[in-house]
Amino acid sequence: MSDTALDLSLDAARLTARLVDLRSESGSEKPLADAIEQALRALPHLTVDRYGNNVVARTRLGRAERVVLAGHIDTVPIADNVPSRLDEDGVLWGCGTCDMKAGVAVQLRIAATVPEPVRDLTFVFYDNEEVAAHLNGLGHIARAHPDWLEGDFAVLLEPSDGEVEGGCQGTLRVLLRTTGERAHSARSWMGSNAIHAAAPILARLAAYEPRYPVIDGLEYREGLNAVAVSGGVAGNVIPDECVVTVNFRYAPDRTEAEALAHVHEVFADCGVEEFVVDDHSGGALPGLSHPAAAAFIEAVGGSPRPKYGWTDVARFSGLGIPAVNYGPGNPHLAHRRDERVDTAKILAGEERLRAWLTA
Amino acid sequence: MSDTALDLSLDAARLTARLVDLRSESGSEKPLADAIEQALRALPHLTVDRYGNNVVARTRLGRAERVVLAGHIDTVPIADNVPSRLDEDGVLWGCGTCDMKAGVAVQLRIAATVPEPVRDLTFVFYDNEEVAAHLNGLGHIARAHPDWLEGDFAVLLEPSDGEVEGGCQGTLRVLLRTTGERAHSARSWMGSNAIHAAAPILARLAAYEPRYPVIDGLEYREGLNAVAVSGGVAGNVIPDECVVTVNFRYAPDRTEAEALAHVHEVFADCGVEEFVVDDHSGGALPGLSHPAAAAFIEAVGGSPRPKYGWTDVARFSGLGIPAVNYGPGNPHLAHRRDERVDTAKILAGEERLRAWLTA
Repeated sequence: MSDTALDLSLDAARLTARLVDLRSESGSEKPLADAIEQALRALPHLTVDRYGNNVVARTRLGRAERVVLAGHIDTVPIADNVPSRLDEDGVLWGCGTCDMKAGVAVQLRIAATVPEPVRDLTFVFYDNEEVAAHLNGLGHIARAHPDWLEGDFAVLLEPSDGEVEGGCQGTLRVLLRTTGERAHSARSWMGSNAIHAAAPILARLAAYEPRYPVIDGLEYREGLNAVAVSGGVAGNVIPDECVVTVNFRYAPDRTEAEALAHVHEVFADCGVEEFVVDDHSGGALPGLSHPAAAAFIEAVGGSPRPKYGWTDVARFSGLGIPAVNYGPGNPHLAHRRDERVDTAKILAGEERLRAWLTA
Repeated sequence: MSDTALDLSLDAARLTARLVDLRSESGSEKPLADAIEQALRALPHLTVDRYGNNVVARTRLGRAERVVLAGHIDTVPIADNVPSRLDEDGVLWGCGTCDMKAGVAVQLRIAATVPEPVRDLTFVFYDNEEVAAHLNGLGHIARAHPDWLEGDFAVLLEPSDGEVEGGCQGTLRVLLRTTGERAHSARSWMGSNAIHAAAPILARLAAYEPRYPVIDGLEYREGLNAVAVSGGVAGNVIPDECVVTVNFRYAPDRTEAEALAHVHEVFADCGVEEFVVDDHSGGALPGLSHPAAAAFIEAVGGSPRPKYGWTDVARFSGLGIPAVNYGPGNPHLAHRRDERVDTAKILAGEERLRAWLTA
């Protein structure tokens, strides 16, 4: 076995360690994509396709339903936390252990050990999830080869602490600009202060009462927050511009257009000179009432939770495929120097998926 | 006559042009200080002292009163506006024409042409006025040779458009810091937003009603303004710190301690976590009722005005010497690329001072 080859007969915990040691920071996924492609091509029951550093493998059993199991293979920058280290409590430490090579290991183990699933399977391994949205490999596949992603239901193996997380909230960032007129601060009455003009914006934010709507039985939590404020020319000048950057996290019962309209409405009479949309990604409805989703939840157990952050389930939602997050890692440990995963949770996740796909 | 020598037989307008062409941006005043020292040492009725690039020249006539005529010899950075240029309307263009080589030319002309003034005279030429306060040459002389500055009344030849400007306002800059707790903006309820916490500060600033007190017959105008605001960690993070920088310009009937107490009082219940004084220079009372000041105003004519900006008259005030601004430049033209001065005003300023000192 070469240095870079993957041995899919290892259990999911050992395989996670192997994947972590095969470094794959965003933009440098090629060696890992090569290893995954090579390992999957050795499995006769799968058809394998590749696009850039994205690998897709499918069963062709003619089942009534097709399920997509998806995971990104890149990690955030390594922070002196590779190679991985297994401690005496069975916790595996290292960059990507939690987000999300444990999930990728589960995908690979299912691919290798379930040759005749009761639902047809599509395995998606994609790059550049941790960086700018336009680089995201899942988005690239969706544009170039949408047929590769066809399915009735998708499970994204992002860290969710072994619980099903449904849908995701949208996120909208808007710059609110106020203006004034410069003057020397010794003669302030000759100017008009753009920072003072932002007072109603901050007052409105401080008083804002977010909705906590219940959708498909899950309680979402909206939030409207300033994430930045800047203004000022010099220590003795009345400033002529101030920008408050607000981030609206909204439940998936609002469309993108409705979310933007809401932000305009909230600040309608606050003296905003200009609204500039800086970033916008719509949410995804949980879709838990879909039969495939309901069967999945019944099989893996636990109580579904809402996903507050934005994830790639929204991309599947955009393709018309209901999707959930279901991965062994604890999301609060992602992107940390002390990132880690409990190997018992990796093995449990693998077993639950196998049970669902072989029952 | 060498390239750097000053010919004090030139009229004040031509002398101003000569001074402008002898570049002297702050920190590079030595050639000009050398030229001034050399020219003054050639005048037998003056005693000349030098400290660094500061030059002081005094008559020793035993008069009942001593008047200080002071001016800084540095300029802000040159902006493609040297050498000077005289247009057909008698306007002299160039860096330092207005602020304040026109005033320095008047000082030098009085020094050269009034050997027996009715009041003893002290001429002060100092460096580094346009930069940080601790570099200011007048302050250096005051600390090292306070006796050089002794006098009953001081005239600072800063641009005042040929009118007497009495006293000056104080300026206080304070950082108001609010704090919160970081959280991912998708889970904003787990944090606390420091920018929202600044809402009461901006509201208080927007509603602030400044005093316009009348002192010695002059109306001052206070102002309390945000000159900067900053906060924000990243586009998806609830910020844990926000800083509003406020500048309080206050009338000279408040002491420095009273001004600071006022700022604390204004923002007392606004949730400010920390007040940090960033910069503070007290004001100067106009002192126009002092006999020397009253005689000066009567001699030069016009209606005295208040000075809103901070100037070095406050340093004289701190030494117990009543002081006014009285210079030929228009203060609104200072520090501009199109800085200029009407040469007729330079000549008129020289004549009025000569009349006062020879009457």
